[in-house]
Amino acid sequence: MIGWLAIAGLGPGAAQLVTPEVTEALAEATDVVGYEPYVMRVPPRAGLTRHGSDNREEIDRASLALRLAAQGRRVVVVSSGDPGVFAMAAAVFEAIDAGDPSWRDLDVRVLPGISAMFAAAARVGAPLGHDFCAINLSDNLKPWELIERRLRLAAQADFVIALYNPLSSARPWQLGRAFELLREELPGSVPLVFASAISDAREAIETVTLRDAVASRADMRTVVLVGSSRTRLIVRADGSRFVYTPRSAGVSP
Amino acid sequence: MIGWLAIAGLGPGAAQLVTPEVTEALAEATDVVGYEPYVMRVPPRAGLTRHGSDNREEIDRASLALRLAAQGRRVVVVSSGDPGVFAMAAAVFEAIDAGDPSWRDLDVRVLPGISAMFAAAARVGAPLGHDFCAINLSDNLKPWELIERRLRLAAQADFVIALYNPLSSARPWQLGRAFELLREELPGSVPLVFASAISDAREAIETVTLRDAVASRADMRTVVLVGSSRTRLIVRADGSRFVYTPRSAGVSP
Repeated sequence: MIGWLAIAGLGPGAAQLVTPEVTEALAEATDVVGYEPYVMRVPPRAGLTRHGSDNREEIDRASLALRLAAQGRRVVVVSSGDPGVFAMAAAVFEAIDAGDPSWRDLDVRVLPGISAMFAAAARVGAPLGHDFCAINLSDNLKPWELIERRLRLAAQADFVIALYNPLSSARPWQLGRAFELLREELPGSVPLVFASAISDAREAIETVTLRDAVASRADMRTVVLVGSSRTRLIVRADGSRFVYTPRSAGVSP
Repeated sequence: MIGWLAIAGLGPGAAQLVTPEVTEALAEATDVVGYEPYVMRVPPRAGLTRHGSDNREEIDRASLALRLAAQGRRVVVVSSGDPGVFAMAAAVFEAIDAGDPSWRDLDVRVLPGISAMFAAAARVGAPLGHDFCAINLSDNLKPWELIERRLRLAAQADFVIALYNPLSSARPWQLGRAFELLREELPGSVPLVFASAISDAREAIETVTLRDAVASRADMRTVVLVGSSRTRLIVRADGSRFVYTPRSAGVSP
């Protein structure tokens, strides 16, 4: 048996958002490796071993997957969203770069998925319709000062900003500090979206303004979208709102 | 019949990258509206009218789709990639915002797709594994000065940068100017990927360095990924390379 490793994106939650390419890889796999709740999204079947692990163990998980593929197993590493966006793909390539030299010649593919930021954006309209950036707010792997610097530069560039991993019990103050800093750089009136658990049963979306945003509204499953100076609301008869950023832009703020 | 409008992402090209949600909407549609080559990706069938149009007519196309939905038709506006990323979703919401007030109460949904930047990233590894941004290089709808400002700020933030719409016959010099400017801000050694026509028969991918990048390599179907100062290459026995950006970062450059 010739082994392979696919790093696959399961999308934000709903089966309707999993690509046929990923479904096919999972059907051919002998092993699924990943964070336990994502692994559990793959139904059990004969011939498939599911290796669930804790959230903090990306490199161990990547190394396990590489060892299995080197042994001839057909391995899918699962991520939610897109595997290339603050997820398992970078961890696997870090493990390849630092690990057994033979690993670099394994059959390794990345299978893209619907990212949390695009699923969240789709739910409210088209907030990412103009230039945008994505910033991981976790300071586990980079200094907080770098995150602050990026937030300021992103606001000065008038990007729409998607914030990943905004808050956890171990990182309780970072999102509030990010909001303070963004309020110094952007009008308080810019729309801000909290989008949680998109496309699953616990989906919750709230559109507020940067001025009124309260960090405790977010949790580990939330993506926060911060509008640019051009982002607009369309109010509907039922009180709901579309959020979108026009394609055109005048001079920068 | 109650009309609706879905703005759907067809992904970069391959049928294996179209979500079941989009496939289902297309199966229920009476009308498909979009840029001619994308509309032609939807097979003809009885009961389906395909409305193809030229590339420059986004607002006319959006208005047509909204009029059809208001008449009770089931309309899918198709984009390549993700519809919310430099594609038709923003154009439809612009048309709603400026158009017939009754349009804002139509049943309008956005169905996300696999974006060109994530499909391109997946093909080479995990170049977007750390903080990143996406900039539309077209100056049709924004001043070139704003684009230059964003490029400089993005490089100073040490984002990985995805450049959409890098070059066309009507915009021949912009990408070359962008490379010049980025060379002033970033080490010449950062990896740079030209990714064209991802997942279709004409797919072409080339990894070079910022120093050696030649703008004429790109065309209208190319996404350019510019690495950050941390982006790395892994060279394989067959001479191919993986490109990835580690999750961790030290101080900014």
